[in-house]
Amino acid sequence: METLLAASQRAMKYFVTGGAGFIGSNLVDRLLSVGHEVVVFDNLSTGQMQFLDQASRSRNLTMLCGDLLDRSQLTTAMRDCEFVFHLAANADVRYGTEHPRKDLEQNTIATFNVLEAMRSNGIKGIAFSSTGSIYGEPQFFPTPENVAFPLQTSLYGASKLAGEGLIQAYCEGFGFRGWIFRFVSILGERYSHGHVFDFYQQLRDHPGRLDVLGDGNQRKSYLYVQDCIDAIFVAIAKCQDRINILNLGTDEYCSVKSSVSWIVKELGLNPHIDFKGGPRGWVGDSPFIFLDCSRMRALGWAPKLSIREAVVRTLRYLQNNSHILERRS
Amino acid sequence: METLLAASQRAMKYFVTGGAGFIGSNLVDRLLSVGHEVVVFDNLSTGQMQFLDQASRSRNLTMLCGDLLDRSQLTTAMRDCEFVFHLAANADVRYGTEHPRKDLEQNTIATFNVLEAMRSNGIKGIAFSSTGSIYGEPQFFPTPENVAFPLQTSLYGASKLAGEGLIQAYCEGFGFRGWIFRFVSILGERYSHGHVFDFYQQLRDHPGRLDVLGDGNQRKSYLYVQDCIDAIFVAIAKCQDRINILNLGTDEYCSVKSSVSWIVKELGLNPHIDFKGGPRGWVGDSPFIFLDCSRMRALGWAPKLSIREAVVRTLRYLQNNSHILERRS
Repeated sequence: METLLAASQRAMKYFVTGGAGFIGSNLVDRLLSVGHEVVVFDNLSTGQMQFLDQASRSRNLTMLCGDLLDRSQLTTAMRDCEFVFHLAANADVRYGTEHPRKDLEQNTIATFNVLEAMRSNGIKGIAFSSTGSIYGEPQFFPTPENVAFPLQTSLYGASKLAGEGLIQAYCEGFGFRGWIFRFVSILGERYSHGHVFDFYQQLRDHPGRLDVLGDGNQRKSYLYVQDCIDAIFVAIAKCQDRINILNLGTDEYCSVKSSVSWIVKELGLNPHIDFKGGPRGWVGDSPFIFLDCSRMRALGWAPKLSIREAVVRTLRYLQNNSHILERRS
Repeated sequence: METLLAASQRAMKYFVTGGAGFIGSNLVDRLLSVGHEVVVFDNLSTGQMQFLDQASRSRNLTMLCGDLLDRSQLTTAMRDCEFVFHLAANADVRYGTEHPRKDLEQNTIATFNVLEAMRSNGIKGIAFSSTGSIYGEPQFFPTPENVAFPLQTSLYGASKLAGEGLIQAYCEGFGFRGWIFRFVSILGERYSHGHVFDFYQQLRDHPGRLDVLGDGNQRKSYLYVQDCIDAIFVAIAKCQDRINILNLGTDEYCSVKSSVSWIVKELGLNPHIDFKGGPRGWVGDSPFIFLDCSRMRALGWAPKLSIREAVVRTLRYLQNNSHILERRS
């Protein structure tokens, strides 16, 4: 697996769940750009065909519209693939308590189905998009991968933790090799939900007022999507343990208030800001996310954009692609 | 919930999943003995009606044969109960890789269904039988509850970790209160699988030979079932956090070789012992389990039996209840 992802090595056939989504489609573009074959498997619940506009010009792309809960379709679709990027998920962290079954099905059971389909097809390598949310509300910052055994505070975090555990057990029990990435929030092109989206949408509808969940003092970390994909490539090329777990973020964080100030400045607005109060934006929201990414840094990777630059770039993308907002509103 | 389980306080109605099983039926007897009402929900896959012989003489017992994967049956069954002991599980750690779906369904999805049924019925208290297996192969002994974030090494451990995460998220998201017990292996009356069972069964069939998985140097910890139930009662009465996580074991461990020597001595045998070799009994087996139980000890609880006493008592039970062995062979 040393040759994995390197442009100069043999082309491989990758299976990308959620390949029509925000991060997935950017990853697909990158894989195709270095000559690999890609099978995208996406149910288009949040993914969008237009994110694959560029990719679909390649003869090396196969797009399959399918659901990870349909095991037989999934198993057939994965045939002849050599490595799986499992990015499909319910990433709707905020509304978890309104539909608890969604996280169980889309994140935990779906991950189980992916692993079983891999086993049926003799595929043994998987990269997984996990999340810093599995640290719950840690006592230690920046939070390293081997922090004290955390408590789950959200259904989303719990469902991703379950996915991680399954992958680890398959590595041990079936000789799989796994790369588990614990992401902070990702920003950039094709970003289609999250705080920059919400704030921009509000300010477009009513430029004089902005509602902000929580007291604005929540501190969060963000990473630009291309930096995220760089990191994934570097980690898979350089980390060769059976189970490789890597935090993925920037070595900085910002308050919600700071992010708001960058956004309104960039838009040239001066709205009344109505903070809804409380240390958390919603039940299960973590008031402070700041990951220790030194394991990833030690591999020679570094993000190219600061949080502020990533926020501004995301804003530019939303301004130039207003159809993204229409779709959601 | 301060009054919970105390004999002198008002009687409550408890729901016990796996209530016809080894630990469950012993718990049911105890709850009935102090005047509580109990609804047992068990699919009798490993539970046995005869374990409820004593309990069924009480007017306060309701026994329902049902499956946790049948959500509507489960939700109806739980009506009017005030607290749930969720002990039902696939506890077949050793054969996890032969049927990965079983752990997902019986442990993870079943736990989700229990939590949803509780939510439908307005029940907010749950005690859960988790396991020291979720620590995988820890680097630190005795292993405390807040050890460094572990890697899963078995499908069983992964499925129980997923159950823990779900319970924690429900505590945070829906105001539940949870008691999560990470058990070592439990021994005692109604014990019906595990190493004492296997060794006794072998020696009954062929007293001159004993096959032992691994090299016999695996070190494990065990707890007597009545000590286990004492601990559960103490913890629920005294721990009042939203999420209470407690290791449950003895402050000692023994090697498989020691346990073998106690068993053959007790049986008056001198068999040829054939160690199958390797540091683990099977894929995913942890070569060393030894939990730090000081959190539980600080509540004033202490086990009454040593590991050796518990092994011998289990052996006596099997000798006097050979139908247990017939059922399995």
